[in-house]
Amino acid sequence: MPVPFDLTLYFVTDHRQPIEQTVDITRAAVAGGVTMVQLRKPEAHGRQLLEEALALKAVLAGTGVPLIVNDRIDVAHAAGADGVHVGQSDLPAAAARAILGPDAIIGLSSVTPEEMAAIDPAAVDYVGIGPFAATTTKGDAGDALAIEGTRHACRLSPVRMVAIGGITETNAADVATTGVEGISVVSALSEASDPRAAAHRLRAAFETGRG
Amino acid sequence: MPVPFDLTLYFVTDHRQPIEQTVDITRAAVAGGVTMVQLRKPEAHGRQLLEEALALKAVLAGTGVPLIVNDRIDVAHAAGADGVHVGQSDLPAAAARAILGPDAIIGLSSVTPEEMAAIDPAAVDYVGIGPFAATTTKGDAGDALAIEGTRHACRLSPVRMVAIGGITETNAADVATTGVEGISVVSALSEASDPRAAAHRLRAAFETGRG
Repeated sequence: MPVPFDLTLYFVTDHRQPIEQTVDITRAAVAGGVTMVQLRKPEAHGRQLLEEALALKAVLAGTGVPLIVNDRIDVAHAAGADGVHVGQSDLPAAAARAILGPDAIIGLSSVTPEEMAAIDPAAVDYVGIGPFAATTTKGDAGDALAIEGTRHACRLSPVRMVAIGGITETNAADVATTGVEGISVVSALSEASDPRAAAHRLRAAFETGRG
Repeated sequence: MPVPFDLTLYFVTDHRQPIEQTVDITRAAVAGGVTMVQLRKPEAHGRQLLEEALALKAVLAGTGVPLIVNDRIDVAHAAGADGVHVGQSDLPAAAARAILGPDAIIGLSSVTPEEMAAIDPAAVDYVGIGPFAATTTKGDAGDALAIEGTRHACRLSPVRMVAIGGITETNAADVATTGVEGISVVSALSEASDPRAAAHRLRAAFETGRG
């Protein structure tokens, strides 16, 4: 069984920012209520990604907030991260489970009903579903699912769900009505003038909507 | 201890070619005397690289020629490849050993005396040294080492060595005089009109030079 984790407010780092800035934003955002952190930098080589993962791990030490590495299972292993998040064009989740073991947190990006039906709950701990709305940080994210699409995906999913893509303080309460356990954001925190306050407001909005 | 391997003629696949072409070239080149194969496609996502590794593994089944995956330790693990080859900007070789275990073949690209001095023979089974001459298939390969530079690197290395970069039928005999155990080529096979005959000639040239 994977270590316990809380999907309520899941910060995915902004690949356009240098690691020093990501570290500062992450520290503030966790102080404001972020419950999980994912390092995502698709253009980084393995050595750089490992160094950035270790920097974030140091920031998160003692907070109880898990560190997830996007795509690179080998980097997650080398960094001693808590898990990995894979997309449909990355290695299968089962490959991540085989390398990282039963305690790792393994997330999967999934959108279509076919992808939902193929999910193996033994390999996948949560699914990221999106984009909820239009997003600026991921060019290939596809059409927005909105409330109905997200709700439909939640009914199909055999595992826990987090919504991602275009989520802001304005729509976070709406997202909460779909059945997802949490919201995942990039720019709502990475571009916030005060990431700590922004995290607090995002979390409050989601929890209000959840009722 | 890693499985036995023979560095004499090491084919690194051409990332500019589709996998169907790579498979055909590999099959012919192995029939002509290739002793190791490395799948290198830096631009491929994990899922695609896994599929290509499995295709090459099928070609190599029963030949005794090991399959090495470039960079991605996780893909090497998922494919059941024989090992991985990492560069200085990839994950450390020790990370590969930790994931792939004692039987895996782990190669490292290394050039400078500082890089040579840092090699841990417990993690690294062979070093690829280069470029021997000017190369067209790797833009960031650096200045040519030529015979003297390669010979010097061989004296510094605590592990087995293979030369790479700009090696052809014309210079393969010269390379053999430097102390490396073998030659690694991309375009000398991937662009050959008859990869089987080209492999045979490359191997013969190297073995003649080795004396």
